[in-house]
Amino acid sequence: MRLRNKPWADDYMREHDHIVVQEPFEMLGKWSELFKNPKAPLHLEIGSGKGQFIAGMGKQHNEINFVGIELVKSVIVGALKKVLDADVDNVRLVNEDAQDLRELFGENEIDHLYLNFSDPWPKNRHEKRRLTYHTFLDQYEKVLVPGGEITLKTDNKGLFEYSLVSFSQYGMILEDVSVDLHAEEDPLNVPTEYEEKFSAKGQPIYRCRARFK
Amino acid sequence: MRLRNKPWADDYMREHDHIVVQEPFEMLGKWSELFKNPKAPLHLEIGSGKGQFIAGMGKQHNEINFVGIELVKSVIVGALKKVLDADVDNVRLVNEDAQDLRELFGENEIDHLYLNFSDPWPKNRHEKRRLTYHTFLDQYEKVLVPGGEITLKTDNKGLFEYSLVSFSQYGMILEDVSVDLHAEEDPLNVPTEYEEKFSAKGQPIYRCRARFK
Repeated sequence: MRLRNKPWADDYMREHDHIVVQEPFEMLGKWSELFKNPKAPLHLEIGSGKGQFIAGMGKQHNEINFVGIELVKSVIVGALKKVLDADVDNVRLVNEDAQDLRELFGENEIDHLYLNFSDPWPKNRHEKRRLTYHTFLDQYEKVLVPGGEITLKTDNKGLFEYSLVSFSQYGMILEDVSVDLHAEEDPLNVPTEYEEKFSAKGQPIYRCRARFK
Repeated sequence: MRLRNKPWADDYMREHDHIVVQEPFEMLGKWSELFKNPKAPLHLEIGSGKGQFIAGMGKQHNEINFVGIELVKSVIVGALKKVLDADVDNVRLVNEDAQDLRELFGENEIDHLYLNFSDPWPKNRHEKRRLTYHTFLDQYEKVLVPGGEITLKTDNKGLFEYSLVSFSQYGMILEDVSVDLHAEEDPLNVPTEYEEKFSAKGQPIYRCRARFK
């Protein structure tokens, strides 16, 4: 997909620098200070896209602080708009490439991590790029608290199967698995934009929650 | 489902006592002696039903010895017929209730265990009856070799999700997961009768393989 250029995006993000963190690498170890309630748990979403998930979660859980990372500028401005519309003060956004989370977050700084509809990288030779490859799990384990959890949602069969095995082989414990999330009503599930689109086509949505030991 | 009574079943099984083991509890620790190649790995299927899986596996893998357990007499005679028709000498059947495998098998006697389309026992209060409840995993761990594996297939979403979590929480490692087994061609997959029926209806078949540490 070719994304439209949005030259106003930088201005728009700077105008709302209370939400889009302008110098995120300087926040390492200090993310909680950005929030009204610095003692609340800190949840991180990687790949926030247009922000429906993180804005919805922020609204549903005012007892939790959220940070969402999204690399694509023309997409994150949509997330910024959603967060503004949701009128929540417990969500921050970061427009960076999250190749190494340890450059952004200190040890044990995150309580929960969300991987929503990550790029499946279906070719075997691209395995290392999947966000559940063991080198990424190494990073997550460092920035998460001991016993910290990852929740993964995807519509991609291959990525889901791969991730279950990868979590398990890394030594993580599965806490919850759904192979068809929308088969039953879950009033607490906050769907992403992708999730709504693919679920409406009748495609199953997969979810699992895994814990570091 | 009410199964037709088959009064000839006992006679039929006795006539073929080289396949249907007549005194299975006496074979504890000595199952390999029943086979032409006693050094071959021993694989066990719990709930063999009408036998399409175990007869097909016997034919596909003449380097492996197979034992299939099926409680229902009017069903196991179908398995017996399939094994006879397949003309294989590496399959034995047992008409018993496998509530405690340790009464039938010695420690480390089994190399691989198959749970095919087990009763899902969907109600929470029946959790203990599911064949992947931790008390059953205790049994399997005892009769399996160290590092022994379980392959589970089911069309039941709830049982599959439960089993992945149960395996993981027990400390087992997932080696392989498929959330839609028939989405790709797997020439080595031997379908059960149930599997063919439900897959033909477009229902996904779930499979996983988990290893004891």
